[in-house]
Amino acid sequence: MRKIGVVTSGGDAPGMNAAIRAVVRIAYSKKSQVLGFMKGWEGLITNTFTPLTPRSVGGILQLGGTILRTSRCPEFRKKEGIKKAAENLAANDIDGLVAIGGNGSFNGALELSKETDTLIVGIPATIDNDIFGTDETIGFDTAVNTAVTEIDKIRDTAISHERVFIVEVMGRKRGFLASTVGLTVGAEIILVPEVKYSKANIFKTQRENSAKGKKSGIIVAAEGIGDTHKLAREIEENTGAEVRLSILGYAQRGGNPTARSRLLASLFANKAVELVSEKHENKLVGLQKGEITSIELEKSCKTEKPLDLNLLKLANILAT
Amino acid sequence: MRKIGVVTSGGDAPGMNAAIRAVVRIAYSKKSQVLGFMKGWEGLITNTFTPLTPRSVGGILQLGGTILRTSRCPEFRKKEGIKKAAENLAANDIDGLVAIGGNGSFNGALELSKETDTLIVGIPATIDNDIFGTDETIGFDTAVNTAVTEIDKIRDTAISHERVFIVEVMGRKRGFLASTVGLTVGAEIILVPEVKYSKANIFKTQRENSAKGKKSGIIVAAEGIGDTHKLAREIEENTGAEVRLSILGYAQRGGNPTARSRLLASLFANKAVELVSEKHENKLVGLQKGEITSIELEKSCKTEKPLDLNLLKLANILAT
Amino acid sequence: MRKIGVVTSGGDAPGMNAAIRAVVRIAYSKKSQVLGFMKGWEGLITNTFTPLTPRSVGGILQLGGTILRTSRCPEFRKKEGIKKAAENLAANDIDGLVAIGGNGSFNGALELSKETDTLIVGIPATIDNDIFGTDETIGFDTAVNTAVTEIDKIRDTAISHERVFIVEVMGRKRGFLASTVGLTVGAEIILVPEVKYSKANIFKTQRENSAKGKKSGIIVAAEGIGDTHKLAREIEENTGAEVRLSILGYAQRGGNPTARSRLLASLFANKAVELVSEKHENKLVGLQKGEITSIELEKSCKTEKPLDLNLLKLANILAT
Amino acid sequence: MRKIGVVTSGGDAPGMNAAIRAVVRIAYSKKSQVLGFMKGWEGLITNTFTPLTPRSVGGILQLGGTILRTSRCPEFRKKEGIKKAAENLAANDIDGLVAIGGNGSFNGALELSKETDTLIVGIPATIDNDIFGTDETIGFDTAVNTAVTEIDKIRDTAISHERVFIVEVMGRKRGFLASTVGLTVGAEIILVPEVKYSKANIFKTQRENSAKGKKSGIIVAAEGIGDTHKLAREIEENTGAEVRLSILGYAQRGGNPTARSRLLASLFANKAVELVSEKHENKLVGLQKGEITSIELEKSCKTEKPLDLNLLKLANILAT
Repeated sequence: MRKIGVVTSGGDAPGMNAAIRAVVRIAYSKKSQVLGFMKGWEGLITNTFTPLTPRSVGGILQLGGTILRTSRCPEFRKKEGIKKAAENLAANDIDGLVAIGGNGSFNGALELSKETDTLIVGIPATIDNDIFGTDETIGFDTAVNTAVTEIDKIRDTAISHERVFIVEVMGRKRGFLASTVGLTVGAEIILVPEVKYSKANIFKTQRENSAKGKKSGIIVAAEGIGDTHKLAREIEENTGAEVRLSILGYAQRGGNPTARSRLLASLFANKAVELVSEKHENKLVGLQKGEITSIELEKSCKTEKPLDLNLLKLANILAT
Repeated sequence: MRKIGVVTSGGDAPGMNAAIRAVVRIAYSKKSQVLGFMKGWEGLITNTFTPLTPRSVGGILQLGGTILRTSRCPEFRKKEGIKKAAENLAANDIDGLVAIGGNGSFNGALELSKETDTLIVGIPATIDNDIFGTDETIGFDTAVNTAVTEIDKIRDTAISHERVFIVEVMGRKRGFLASTVGLTVGAEIILVPEVKYSKANIFKTQRENSAKGKKSGIIVAAEGIGDTHKLAREIEENTGAEVRLSILGYAQRGGNPTARSRLLASLFANKAVELVSEKHENKLVGLQKGEITSIELEKSCKTEKPLDLNLLKLANILAT
Repeated sequence: MRKIGVVTSGGDAPGMNAAIRAVVRIAYSKKSQVLGFMKGWEGLITNTFTPLTPRSVGGILQLGGTILRTSRCPEFRKKEGIKKAAENLAANDIDGLVAIGGNGSFNGALELSKETDTLIVGIPATIDNDIFGTDETIGFDTAVNTAVTEIDKIRDTAISHERVFIVEVMGRKRGFLASTVGLTVGAEIILVPEVKYSKANIFKTQRENSAKGKKSGIIVAAEGIGDTHKLAREIEENTGAEVRLSILGYAQRGGNPTARSRLLASLFANKAVELVSEKHENKLVGLQKGEITSIELEKSCKTEKPLDLNLLKLANILAT
Repeated sequence: MRKIGVVTSGGDAPGMNAAIRAVVRIAYSKKSQVLGFMKGWEGLITNTFTPLTPRSVGGILQLGGTILRTSRCPEFRKKEGIKKAAENLAANDIDGLVAIGGNGSFNGALELSKETDTLIVGIPATIDNDIFGTDETIGFDTAVNTAVTEIDKIRDTAISHERVFIVEVMGRKRGFLASTVGLTVGAEIILVPEVKYSKANIFKTQRENSAKGKKSGIIVAAEGIGDTHKLAREIEENTGAEVRLSILGYAQRGGNPTARSRLLASLFANKAVELVSEKHENKLVGLQKGEITSIELEKSCKTEKPLDLNLLKLANILAT
């Protein structure tokens, strides 16, 4: 019988619980036992865990957040912390560790992999969708829909008051969330960290929209694009439009996962447990071209996922 | 045949369209005709209106915002603007004007009533629920549920990360929204403009909660209570808790109205058209002690609605 | 220190958990202890209970269903079962029993009250809203909104296909749910068990609607009005309209409670614990004319709550 | 300047409006003009259409149903009807016709293509997801999420009453919806038309679940699997479990499209207009292995899309 550890780390994402449940039940079907480490990497360092069984993960499929808790763990960025974690993996006889999280978590996992014989498999779960090696991460679809639902509401006010709204969505460094949300709410303008924007162009677009009878508008901006308060004020001053700012905030990270986030969680978990059972190298599972696949953990950590600029071009045409 | 005008003014609220629809169809059943003035009081000054029929208000019952548009209208705060509006009411032979909006709108309506023979009836519609003469306004229930749904999501992250969240809801001057939302999400602390709060007490409560095993928490704050960014930082510094701020923003003002907001809209419109038909004085319709009633428009404008402090006390006990 | 029992019985309703939580925390603030009996009256007969503490009811406020489980309990309709329950109340030193449920539950509670000295207080929780002594029950607002949300979706198809839909909502004997839902979705026709309907009139209305350009329509029917499959077929045959039937089903009974259902649950629980503490007679708490009140349990059981027919008349006008 | 026709046909699906909007705006960006034919193929036969412009399709992106209406059109199954449609395409100088719909619609389109020189491009939009040549259809993701949301609610009652629920989802012939919904709600059993099921096995699974402490359960069944009323009764009789049936019905076909349904609609429309501009043969656009592609319309019509049985196997393991 094999022993598998599971841990959620970094920012929480809807569907993490679905992934935990799937890891446990699939492992159980392969006669493996699962330990859940608490509070992210912290639990590996402090050796805090709880045995997980098919029954103990009942009723969590549809819950946001993570029953294993999560944290950002500074100790884990130090050699000492990582060594302690490696010791605990050995002490508990863990054959494979399934790490559910985002970029930061996988960098940690990569460091840990250098100090341990335990096989490590990553499952990408973050609303940012910024992980190389997968077209989509667990939680992304949920966050997109949460933002879209909110912006559909904001548009009611935009239209009624004939105002322009800048809506800031999450994404400090990357614009995956902003670009998908922007296209699917029909945003007039989408601003992402990857593409430099010209304020003059924004003013021009706004004036043209106004001229062609678009009396209200939505600008979707990733938080990483700079000062949106200032931008709102400047658009107002330069175009005469009434402009308001709404920052969607942490609700984007929570809530019941959508069907798609639950499905991805189940498929990724299935692949991860399979990889652990087959004693592959350290890997990250993912969705690539519609198939569940995997790549080297290291490659994922060291490569930047490109943003699909065609989506932004299409959004631009659709906002005509 | 009577001629009724209808106008939506001030901030939009979910259920305004339901009220417009009901005014038109009830008026029609009483053989009255309805004109919809556009963009709030501005439409009365510029004499911009559209005839509304039972068919033309089809399909709007469930839509947020207002098909008549709305605005804040500075011209209407001047004698000249009000005179112009009064002239247009006379020129169009309007027997009664139904004004759907909030406090500012009714102050305008009251001024207008002094310059016109047209009967004016107000229908309270604002997510702030701050209008004297009614226990509940159109849109309040929707905004409460929108905020509650968002905060339920934020709690997922609060629990997963063992963090405290300050969630800022709308309410520059009044805490009706914050107190109902706070109680119904099970907030650990509720802050409203009407009640001075002691930072020392907040720190103490947070420390006690932490001591009794509440590792996460929600503080619901009305926007009018002061600088929530600063408050978040100070709680963090004084209690050791990780604190985050989320400002719910404009989504609270939009979205499909809840059943209750639609019901209130229908009942208020029914009463308003009845008052217009019966040539009462200028009134505001409302819900009082479970009944649809009305009070003098002037009385509503000149009286401050008290906040139910018992709700805050109960919320405090429930947050044990 | 007093000892309070709490039990949920009959059909589940969203907000029951909010009521359990509130009973426990309010009791705790009055230095009382709470035992939760499991699976409705069955738990009183089998003496199956669990101690409830402020911490053990954490995180349940927003959950549908009931953590205490519920059941329909045939043994409790027999003298023997009731005697056993009374003995267990005595054996556990229960000063007051808070029964959360609907009509059937309160009839049981009334019988039990004749065999025990334990004070019994009922909290009305049922999506049917059919309990005398309260204008609204816990769960009603949630069920109304669930149905309204579903019917808003069905209307998309109705309009796109130019069809008439009969939508059957819950309500075997009473039409509270159907009438509120019908009015708030803008149903063309509302059918409730309390009002005999003429098929000829339905055909006539449908033909008139069609003639005035209403190409689609919604008929909201309580399940107790008879065979809706047959009705659909007959409307089709007699009017030429394409008619479809949709039965909303059990989803109406579940889901996260709305803010209003949570608020009522908290207010009712507060009153119930107060009544238990003050050693009143057996009572049912309720909302009457906007105030939290109580009436004799027996009176509630023996009186039929009237349906507000004015709501149906208004709905009829609004469907113009 | 080219002239493009657009038509929605067959059952409506959420995202059809998003597709119409995208066709119009993308065509416009390529200097093409768009005519919208009304009520499915009927509008081609009766030559009923409306010119569509970037402005006239504003505000429809998020609406369920189809502004062009739809119908099942028996005349179009006859030679005569198809000839009439072909004549009208010629009379209106339509270069390309974009047909948005499902299987039946594309069979019609294929017949029409034999009688006309107008290029025909199909966009797959149906909640059934049963079209060969695309991994996913517009509306499927929305219907899945609608069903999942409903079943999450039903589970509250299932758990509270310790009952088994059979939930019937749409799918007369195919089980795509049932299998994805079943996996993502964590159904204990999934029944699809493609896989023969043994009642004895269902009884056995139910008894085993009960023995291992699963006191409630969800069985997701496609409508095409046979008499679910009877099945419910038989499970009850053979296992002792309390069993209820809930038929989700037409709400699965309506509602605001999810982000994913909107995104697919936009991407498919983009491809369709491109194909029309480039004078390809008659094609169906689709999503294959994560890429937007196209196949011959005829091939799609004449090939049955296989159901992924691995999904059912995985669901089975996850229901452990």
